[in-house]
Amino acid sequence: MNRPIITLTTDFGTKDGNVGAVKGVIMRINPKVEIVDVTHEIKPFDSFGAAFTLNNFYRYFPQNTIHLVVIDPGVGSKRQPLLLQTPDFLFVGPDNGVFSFILQNEEIDEIISISNRKYFLSKISPTFHARDIFAPVAAYLSLGVDIREFGVPATECSQLFIPLTKASRRGIVGEIIHVDNFGNLITNIEEKSIQDERIKFIEIKRRRISQTAKSYYEIPEGNIGALIGSSGFLEIATNRGNAAELVKADVDTKVRIIFD
Amino acid sequence: MNRPIITLTTDFGTKDGNVGAVKGVIMRINPKVEIVDVTHEIKPFDSFGAAFTLNNFYRYFPQNTIHLVVIDPGVGSKRQPLLLQTPDFLFVGPDNGVFSFILQNEEIDEIISISNRKYFLSKISPTFHARDIFAPVAAYLSLGVDIREFGVPATECSQLFIPLTKASRRGIVGEIIHVDNFGNLITNIEEKSIQDERIKFIEIKRRRISQTAKSYYEIPEGNIGALIGSSGFLEIATNRGNAAELVKADVDTKVRIIFD
Amino acid sequence: MNRPIITLTTDFGTKDGNVGAVKGVIMRINPKVEIVDVTHEIKPFDSFGAAFTLNNFYRYFPQNTIHLVVIDPGVGSKRQPLLLQTPDFLFVGPDNGVFSFILQNEEIDEIISISNRKYFLSKISPTFHARDIFAPVAAYLSLGVDIREFGVPATECSQLFIPLTKASRRGIVGEIIHVDNFGNLITNIEEKSIQDERIKFIEIKRRRISQTAKSYYEIPEGNIGALIGSSGFLEIATNRGNAAELVKADVDTKVRIIFD
Repeated sequence: MNRPIITLTTDFGTKDGNVGAVKGVIMRINPKVEIVDVTHEIKPFDSFGAAFTLNNFYRYFPQNTIHLVVIDPGVGSKRQPLLLQTPDFLFVGPDNGVFSFILQNEEIDEIISISNRKYFLSKISPTFHARDIFAPVAAYLSLGVDIREFGVPATECSQLFIPLTKASRRGIVGEIIHVDNFGNLITNIEEKSIQDERIKFIEIKRRRISQTAKSYYEIPEGNIGALIGSSGFLEIATNRGNAAELVKADVDTKVRIIFD
Repeated sequence: MNRPIITLTTDFGTKDGNVGAVKGVIMRINPKVEIVDVTHEIKPFDSFGAAFTLNNFYRYFPQNTIHLVVIDPGVGSKRQPLLLQTPDFLFVGPDNGVFSFILQNEEIDEIISISNRKYFLSKISPTFHARDIFAPVAAYLSLGVDIREFGVPATECSQLFIPLTKASRRGIVGEIIHVDNFGNLITNIEEKSIQDERIKFIEIKRRRISQTAKSYYEIPEGNIGALIGSSGFLEIATNRGNAAELVKADVDTKVRIIFD
Repeated sequence: MNRPIITLTTDFGTKDGNVGAVKGVIMRINPKVEIVDVTHEIKPFDSFGAAFTLNNFYRYFPQNTIHLVVIDPGVGSKRQPLLLQTPDFLFVGPDNGVFSFILQNEEIDEIISISNRKYFLSKISPTFHARDIFAPVAAYLSLGVDIREFGVPATECSQLFIPLTKASRRGIVGEIIHVDNFGNLITNIEEKSIQDERIKFIEIKRRRISQTAKSYYEIPEGNIGALIGSSGFLEIATNRGNAAELVKADVDTKVRIIFD
């Protein structure tokens, strides 16, 4: 029997000990669980960033992995704590859009609005549900408690607007939706929407990019190029440098592709 | 049988490989131990910060968890390596105040001044006792070695000054003792010292706060409010923003509460 | 039977979910493996930094530990994916010098140029071999697959230039090769090259240091001193402060030792 797995994705940083508290709560309820740190460095309150990050890793984990995602600026408000089940995974977190890509990509078997206080810590701080609600719920899930035990099916569920591209016969207009650790500018333009087209040039911040590449090293150092990144989106990038700094672009910057 | 647990709290950062060395030493001595990263991002040399962080998480872990805390600017000096036992936990680290909140909150069964070189690495660097002394001691502890084996009972033990509040019938004067990852300003004013009072206003940096809230989302965006945080201390906070930057306050900034 | 161990050293940061993807891939192939985070905070593209970090920790791990090191600016180019075997450890990573200290210090039993697609993910992104090649190879290695299965013996292997010191009877000239988390300036001057000498002074950035110490606390606060650090190299350091900032030095800054 393999150990059950809970992955952690938060905006807590580690220095305050809150991640420690979450891990302790989980391990006290299920000492046999395997806790996997994904990140605690999501930008504070950035639910979209968390949704994007989750989309980059969740599908690679073993079946039945529990993905706990807590970016929770609305903690203490009426936003629901949620539990999502798909054929392969379980997801636990607040109802604020962190599961937007999951809702878009996956078959959803069930969404539960978590309410059964039997699976919470006995004292609940209105500012730290990760420790007092989400962590114990994930831990009891990992012990095999049935998801219906935690609450009632949810009737609705928040979904963040994943910016849409605008396509015409002349080209596509998209935007930057994420800047990664290396400064690569990741757009919302998917590989499949351009794979059959011949690209004349790509425009960002009045700069024309004619260089399309397969990998970073193909872009001459100091130049800006474009490639399909490992998540299947078009990226504006450079070689051994930081494209976001070179182009002075950020999330929301527009990107236009002109076809031949 | 559950695997024994060692938690790690340091100011090492991870990029130099020192955390790696500590983990390797532990796993070589006890390959069955479960190592839990709490943080390696304590501000360099900040023993008080480590003490505060430890206080936020230690109690949530399973019984017999070993908490290893190494913020150690005095490494190589005569400051003692310590081992503390409480009814529930073991603590290992340098005698420089990192255990101040433990000494204040917990029943202490025993304090051992670590000296038995049998449980150290054979070569000891005068600048890296975490790797050469603390890690192997924690690992042998996790194997069940009796704490008396590691040295002799300590006669004294450093305790950092946890700043006291000054209370009168008119109010309380306290100060900021921690700024968290979100910029929340955490004071030394405990919930129990104000829960029976009616607050007229709170003053920090000549700013008067009349807004007391239960959770962050109740504070209008852009405003400053006050609430009881998840560790039981009064916090000066804002909603989806950074209160430390807005108020321009930091550790040591005075906070006054005026009662009605 | 102990669980097999894979350590991770990367420049990915954690916020994009790439580390999560690598961990998921490994755990899906070998759910019993123990993944140990060393760092994901190597400076982007800094192969030398990764080599230095690896040298600080690899030897402390249990025998048969698999060290996975991915700093990979040449991903998608012809740089080979490598597998190194030494009597104690296995190393997996790109052929760009991250194993320079291993090649210098250890007896190498075998170097394999990884090519057997049977052990890769089925779809390989040209920008993320960590997830699609290195992670699955490390996971299969941890299952006991013979190293010869992964490819053919490599005929050559990149080694970064580890800067040499210049010694004379009057002294030694070296340079800073690493700045650690505390701002300590670590030189390429090894303990053994100076241990039999009497040092008159040490010069860095026109500053003369006559203070040699055993540990940081011996250096008067605010002063600059020199000591042998925990990796066996001479360090320029201060006490409870940041020597790199005080001296305004960085990697490549020259350091001269003058003998008596």
